[in-house]
Amino acid sequence: MDVKAYMHNLGQQARAASRAMAKADTNAKNMALTMMARAIQRDSAKLLEANAKDLAAAKAAGLDAAMLDRLALTEKGVAGMAEGLLQIAALPDPVGEITGLNYRPSGIQVGKMRVPLGVIGIIYEARPNVTADAAGLCLKSGNASILRGGSEAIHSNQAIAACVREGLAAAGLPETAVQVIETTDRAAVGELITMREFVDVIVPRGGKGLIERLIAEARIPVIKHLHGVCHVYIDDKADLAKAVKIADNAKTSRYGTCNTMETLLVAQGVAGQVLPPLSKIYLDKGVELRGCAASRAIVPAMKEATEEDWHTEYLAPILSVRVVADLDAAIEHINTYSSQHTESIVTEDYTRARRFLREVDSSSVMVNASTRFADGFEYGLGAEIGISTDKIHARGPVGLEGLTSQKFIVLGDGHVRG
Amino acid sequence: MDVKAYMHNLGQQARAASRAMAKADTNAKNMALTMMARAIQRDSAKLLEANAKDLAAAKAAGLDAAMLDRLALTEKGVAGMAEGLLQIAALPDPVGEITGLNYRPSGIQVGKMRVPLGVIGIIYEARPNVTADAAGLCLKSGNASILRGGSEAIHSNQAIAACVREGLAAAGLPETAVQVIETTDRAAVGELITMREFVDVIVPRGGKGLIERLIAEARIPVIKHLHGVCHVYIDDKADLAKAVKIADNAKTSRYGTCNTMETLLVAQGVAGQVLPPLSKIYLDKGVELRGCAASRAIVPAMKEATEEDWHTEYLAPILSVRVVADLDAAIEHINTYSSQHTESIVTEDYTRARRFLREVDSSSVMVNASTRFADGFEYGLGAEIGISTDKIHARGPVGLEGLTSQKFIVLGDGHVRG
Repeated sequence: MDVKAYMHNLGQQARAASRAMAKADTNAKNMALTMMARAIQRDSAKLLEANAKDLAAAKAAGLDAAMLDRLALTEKGVAGMAEGLLQIAALPDPVGEITGLNYRPSGIQVGKMRVPLGVIGIIYEARPNVTADAAGLCLKSGNASILRGGSEAIHSNQAIAACVREGLAAAGLPETAVQVIETTDRAAVGELITMREFVDVIVPRGGKGLIERLIAEARIPVIKHLHGVCHVYIDDKADLAKAVKIADNAKTSRYGTCNTMETLLVAQGVAGQVLPPLSKIYLDKGVELRGCAASRAIVPAMKEATEEDWHTEYLAPILSVRVVADLDAAIEHINTYSSQHTESIVTEDYTRARRFLREVDSSSVMVNASTRFADGFEYGLGAEIGISTDKIHARGPVGLEGLTSQKFIVLGDGHVRG
Repeated sequence: MDVKAYMHNLGQQARAASRAMAKADTNAKNMALTMMARAIQRDSAKLLEANAKDLAAAKAAGLDAAMLDRLALTEKGVAGMAEGLLQIAALPDPVGEITGLNYRPSGIQVGKMRVPLGVIGIIYEARPNVTADAAGLCLKSGNASILRGGSEAIHSNQAIAACVREGLAAAGLPETAVQVIETTDRAAVGELITMREFVDVIVPRGGKGLIERLIAEARIPVIKHLHGVCHVYIDDKADLAKAVKIADNAKTSRYGTCNTMETLLVAQGVAGQVLPPLSKIYLDKGVELRGCAASRAIVPAMKEATEEDWHTEYLAPILSVRVVADLDAAIEHINTYSSQHTESIVTEDYTRARRFLREVDSSSVMVNASTRFADGFEYGLGAEIGISTDKIHARGPVGLEGLTSQKFIVLGDGHVRG
């Protein structure tokens, strides 16, 4: 197979489809999403069969248990995919929204109109449900998409893609508005991330290896999530009951998510009070604690934290703990070690909360809430295509709006510039 | 000079300064801008002296007249720089604006806060006034900046930089918040566009060579302007008096700007009426016309347009002209050849105007107005740092808001995720 020619053909079709999608009306898009959901519901058995093929191959290839877990579809999972598409259909259409349309001294009116980005390339691994989610979000936001799933999920993804195409066709939209790359050749990714004439933005959902490759090789803007070294800072003006509840939830409600707390910072004024009960909770739940000297003086069961720990996203039942002098020291630590994903302060002090919100430069900054809330559904975006830790375009959970941008519109009546 | 070490030092200082700038209050920023303006006014003679040095060197090096023109500062130009800084001081501060803060079913409040991008690298050529403009815009938007002007303007830029530093110091802000690169070594640009740890975004203001280099080499997001192949489409439902006025202004009010019309599209239904008087205006003003066969049948004085003409940004008194069947053909031509900068339709037809606004995918889309309005001042943004023809982040003229992004903020009262 000539991968370059194959990808260019996909790109050309996607570019053409993106023009049809940009002007597609809301009804047609919602109809497509609804028909996709119905096809997925109807084909549930077929999807599970395709998934069983992938699972068998993955087992034979010796993939680890975590990977198999992400790859596996269940009847409930398939129903969830369909439900997700129906939820996207129910979200307001962001495309075409006009804001700030005001008269200027010259007599022209100037405003902004929300528009699709064009063609979006999504690169992801293992989880087949991303195929439906990503297709749905790109479609509703008026974009064409090219999806590149993991090679281990190829049969599952193709089966889902058939349902997606059926939905598009039923709504009279081009089937090429969502294209799933059919080859597992790695060179296809190389083409996808450099076809500047056909692809407007790349959204990767994968590990550090993929992200590093994109930083080095992509010639197209990337909306990316690097990693999540999230912090909770317990201030000495904190309500300690809330602090314990939040610090517990932020770490132990799920260990493997990017919005899980990886480092706990505690003001020295309350460390002696709050660390013993919190440590007991963590240790009872099997969380390994790695502390600074001051933390270990209070909780001797902690291991010693190294410089590397402050940089580490464990994605595991491990937590680093540091006692800091005050709010300034906490912000300094966060600005030095954070991955700018999500940080939370626990305090009852108004001025410190106000300062934390302004001065911490992360995609989500919270007061008296668990970092685990950093999520598209929790934020009311509907689904999310990912979480951005970039500085430009979109920060934090990226929903429909993050897959659009704004152009200027100008209305005149024969106006010319003097 | 060790350029790498020099640039890394600049980067480190900029990163540190960006933290101070992000929390700097509006008063301090406005004070700095005002004091910069005063220093520039006071040092006018000194700036002109430095500029004279640059001009002498440029003449000796044989730079062309257009380059010398862009390089030259006048007393009025210096006054204009100071005035520009005072105008930026008068603009509202975008930083910290909170929008859409709403309660979610979980009980948390979720909203967005506008925040600076961090450290902005600006790469520009010739015009020394960009030093003051860029410094002012980055400062007001709470960013630190690293400015790399053209080597031919080094003395002018350093003299302006001294005024900028004086203003920062007078307001108690770090002088490293605006740093002008002091070496003319080209390797400095290579460092600037790859220092991912210190620089958040690059804004180039230069020719195609620079942009192509950035696309190939930058490892940092770039907000860029590729070129401006702008179109005016005269619909067959146009008011022809308005059409002539707009098409004249869009081409002849200035030839060298990126928002100048380069291709005129005319509906075949009115081509016979509108092309003869328009062509007379153009030819009287010395504009060379290059037309399609249908245009040349109406105006034989036109040269023959080639395929390449439809792609070309002339930046000169040359215009390509094409007769098209209707609105669909006009949109098709624009979507094929436009650089997605600025396009305008002239029509009195409501439905066609509505369609053009939605379906043309350019950073500015206009109805009955000259493309020459595509400009930060005309749009009410205050100054502009450039015009973006990218699809993500900012499209069109980029003012203060384009130098910021939005983070999520979450307010809770001990809330945890279930």
